[in-house]
Amino acid sequence: MAKNDGPEFKKLGMCGTGSMGGMMSLLYAENGVDVYYFDPDEKNVKKLQDEAKAVGLDKSIHSQKDYNEMCKSLESGDEPKFFVYSIPHGGPGDAVLNDLRPNLKKGDIILDCSNEYWKNTERRQKELEPDGIHYIGCGVSGGYQSARSGPSMSPGGDPETLKKILPFLERVAAKDGKGRPCVTPIGPHGSGHYVKMLHNGIEQGMMSSIAEIWFIMHKCMGMEFEQIGDVFESWNKDGLLHDNFLVSIGSDINRTKKDDGSFVLSEVMDKVVQDADDSEGTGIWTCEEAVRLHVPAPTILSAHMFRLGSSDAVRRLAVNKVFGGGVKPGTFKIDIQELQLALYASFLLAFIQGLQIIKAMDREQGWKLDYRKIIQIWRGGCIIQSDHISDVLDSMLGRDDHNDDALLANHEIASELTKAYTPLKNVVLKAIEADAYVPALSASLEYYKYSSSTLLPTQFMEAELDYFGEHMYEKWSEYPGEPAKKGPHHYEWKRATGKVDQKKENKL
Amino acid sequence: MAKNDGPEFKKLGMCGTGSMGGMMSLLYAENGVDVYYFDPDEKNVKKLQDEAKAVGLDKSIHSQKDYNEMCKSLESGDEPKFFVYSIPHGGPGDAVLNDLRPNLKKGDIILDCSNEYWKNTERRQKELEPDGIHYIGCGVSGGYQSARSGPSMSPGGDPETLKKILPFLERVAAKDGKGRPCVTPIGPHGSGHYVKMLHNGIEQGMMSSIAEIWFIMHKCMGMEFEQIGDVFESWNKDGLLHDNFLVSIGSDINRTKKDDGSFVLSEVMDKVVQDADDSEGTGIWTCEEAVRLHVPAPTILSAHMFRLGSSDAVRRLAVNKVFGGGVKPGTFKIDIQELQLALYASFLLAFIQGLQIIKAMDREQGWKLDYRKIIQIWRGGCIIQSDHISDVLDSMLGRDDHNDDALLANHEIASELTKAYTPLKNVVLKAIEADAYVPALSASLEYYKYSSSTLLPTQFMEAELDYFGEHMYEKWSEYPGEPAKKGPHHYEWKRATGKVDQKKENKL
Repeated sequence: MAKNDGPEFKKLGMCGTGSMGGMMSLLYAENGVDVYYFDPDEKNVKKLQDEAKAVGLDKSIHSQKDYNEMCKSLESGDEPKFFVYSIPHGGPGDAVLNDLRPNLKKGDIILDCSNEYWKNTERRQKELEPDGIHYIGCGVSGGYQSARSGPSMSPGGDPETLKKILPFLERVAAKDGKGRPCVTPIGPHGSGHYVKMLHNGIEQGMMSSIAEIWFIMHKCMGMEFEQIGDVFESWNKDGLLHDNFLVSIGSDINRTKKDDGSFVLSEVMDKVVQDADDSEGTGIWTCEEAVRLHVPAPTILSAHMFRLGSSDAVRRLAVNKVFGGGVKPGTFKIDIQELQLALYASFLLAFIQGLQIIKAMDREQGWKLDYRKIIQIWRGGCIIQSDHISDVLDSMLGRDDHNDDALLANHEIASELTKAYTPLKNVVLKAIEADAYVPALSASLEYYKYSSSTLLPTQFMEAELDYFGEHMYEKWSEYPGEPAKKGPHHYEWKRATGKVDQKKENKL
Repeated sequence: MAKNDGPEFKKLGMCGTGSMGGMMSLLYAENGVDVYYFDPDEKNVKKLQDEAKAVGLDKSIHSQKDYNEMCKSLESGDEPKFFVYSIPHGGPGDAVLNDLRPNLKKGDIILDCSNEYWKNTERRQKELEPDGIHYIGCGVSGGYQSARSGPSMSPGGDPETLKKILPFLERVAAKDGKGRPCVTPIGPHGSGHYVKMLHNGIEQGMMSSIAEIWFIMHKCMGMEFEQIGDVFESWNKDGLLHDNFLVSIGSDINRTKKDDGSFVLSEVMDKVVQDADDSEGTGIWTCEEAVRLHVPAPTILSAHMFRLGSSDAVRRLAVNKVFGGGVKPGTFKIDIQELQLALYASFLLAFIQGLQIIKAMDREQGWKLDYRKIIQIWRGGCIIQSDHISDVLDSMLGRDDHNDDALLANHEIASELTKAYTPLKNVVLKAIEADAYVPALSASLEYYKYSSSTLLPTQFMEAELDYFGEHMYEKWSEYPGEPAKKGPHHYEWKRATGKVDQKKENKL
């Protein structure tokens, strides 16, 4: 695509300048765009002003008193106006759209870089389409540091509009190890926000896995923070976990000290509240989608439940008091390489589960997504960046005859998990023995076992369902049968009887 | 409430006579009601005719050629008409309502005994209310045997209507060990169907737990079906699992032989498809509600994911082939009493999780449910019937000062789980060691550990979230803080920088 296909965005209207929006404003300004911004929070306005000044970008970044003024500043002849959202999901997005609406005209583009719910994105797209206004739902990943230096971006919506804005996005997006921009037109409608939502779902599974491994090292193996930092650094350097964002920042976190020499990490309480307080929706929606689309994703769901459980320390303390003092993690030794393999397995399984959800949705919606491109844009600037996993997935996806329906059945994945199975099992065993917490790691282990099994305990479950519910079963002689198809057999395990029959039986 | 408060229902219109509806028709007829029924499926019509004849109830059970004829048959002066639904959830309920609508008049009552989604129930209630037509969403549990002999029933809706139909429901409902009917007016709106939905959610967690224990006995301990049947029978007789429906039928299932002497159980394939094919919604909705209401319910969700994973044997076989032949369960010995305690703990935790979801919804909706009554109606005729667990829960709920927000923090529950913790842990350890499948049991174990913990791995997760997302944390010095409240602290672990800063830094 030639660089000059699209309009040169000389100006944009930035709606919302919290930690992500503020950093993106600087990023855009740095890339030659005049940024006109508004945020109802005075603190955010002031912060961006100061930051722009500090880096000499204050000439390109203009505070606006409201959205009306912003629209006026953006007007220049027939040129379409270009807006970027970075606001909380749900109501706020609608409110801002409402404020912009009187000044929107045909050709204008809104690039929603918030973590918006894909259904809201599609609703707004439908609403604006008749007037020729283009709404692009664009996932932005990598946190505020990446928002400043270049994030991973997943835009979805009208193909023509995506084509127009792509040169701009390619300029500002993160670059992967080969210098390729970490942005691609994901697909139509809400697909961009959907893919970003799943990025965050995978992130939940990964974050629980690494936190569980960290806890084992720190509490069960008695390692000091800095020792753990060294291990994470070496993992991030090469091997299965090389160029892995969560491992990399984990190394920093274990080493960061305050001026008084104490570790910042040691003061952080163990509560994760962003799901419980509804400020972050992506983890919640991912879990809902797994359930709605019937995709088993237990690593991600267990991690989510674990976060929820952590969010209320008052409740945990109350339970702790009555339960004989609670369980206390013990000590044990385990080879560091086993921990690395266990973590790797759980990371990879979180990816597999997340991809299976996207694929199920893709099939339902007919989006026809390009998964190699999705894997590629996750190679830089985003939270789930895991270069070795991307290599493995890419080599599988690049093979035309790969099993698309059962990702675990591809030899590229299977050979990785075969080598990681015993370490994952050993880590879970030792952790449970020591009363440590492994909700995500153990869920990964169980998932992998039952996904590869030809004989499950559900045999008994199916018999029970048929007993009381006439649910119908298939016979082993019909193995493996069709997926998710109701069986043809019912056995009358116990006849249903009422008072009448009982009277009769008594007479006999 | 006096028996004669309500109208005597001499007739009712039965909409849908599948396995549940057919049995309920016989039950109602046996209780002196003339049943006029219609089912679009000829097979169901014929089956009920034959069954009615066989037990001498054919004079009271009348096949109708359509809903119009049914309505005509039910008309008698000013008496309100009374309909009972037993049809699949969703569209079919709307279609039947559409067919009935022209003949409905003020005072008519529809008792929806299907597993309807509570939102559909509430939608129909709102739609019919202005015309004075009463729609009651009524959970019916216990499978088709109970539907015949008397099920556990949870009706919800307009209080006056509930009062009117209660004498009828009390007559037909199951009776608990003390002879009390297993039915109670649950509450307003969709609360009846909601409580039934959670019954089924708890059921999922319990069914996975018992299936996992069965597999351990059968495959890891090498016990014959009949030996397992004996164990289940003894558990059901007294102790922690006495009068437990799933254990009781489990005993039958392990002993049931066909005419040729072979065990029926041995021919049942290990696929549970009713969630994957969307024929049963209750398990799906329960998982969605846990997520929506932020209630950790990992036993239930893990069980659900396990069922989904089981539903596609083609996929599992494909994975099995590439993964070095899959894992094969090994053998081990464990005390039967430890298995019993582990199963008991997982059952109890499924109940706790389910009740916490109902309580969260109750609080959201202001339903003001009576939990002792809910526990009581689950004492007879339903799938999750577990008399010892009901005793424990009832003694807790009967104490005015019980901790309503954290059920695990009550001494009645805590003392049970304290004694069951080590057995549950041992069973999970041995099962994982032997490559058996314990998705629900291990989820129960992890849930209990993290719910009672004052120091979780989420400390590290929270630090990572603050690092890249400025998510803000609380300090240990503020412990335990408020539930689900965003912390006030952010540490600038790594400054965000862009090209401009990098140029500056290079100059220095």
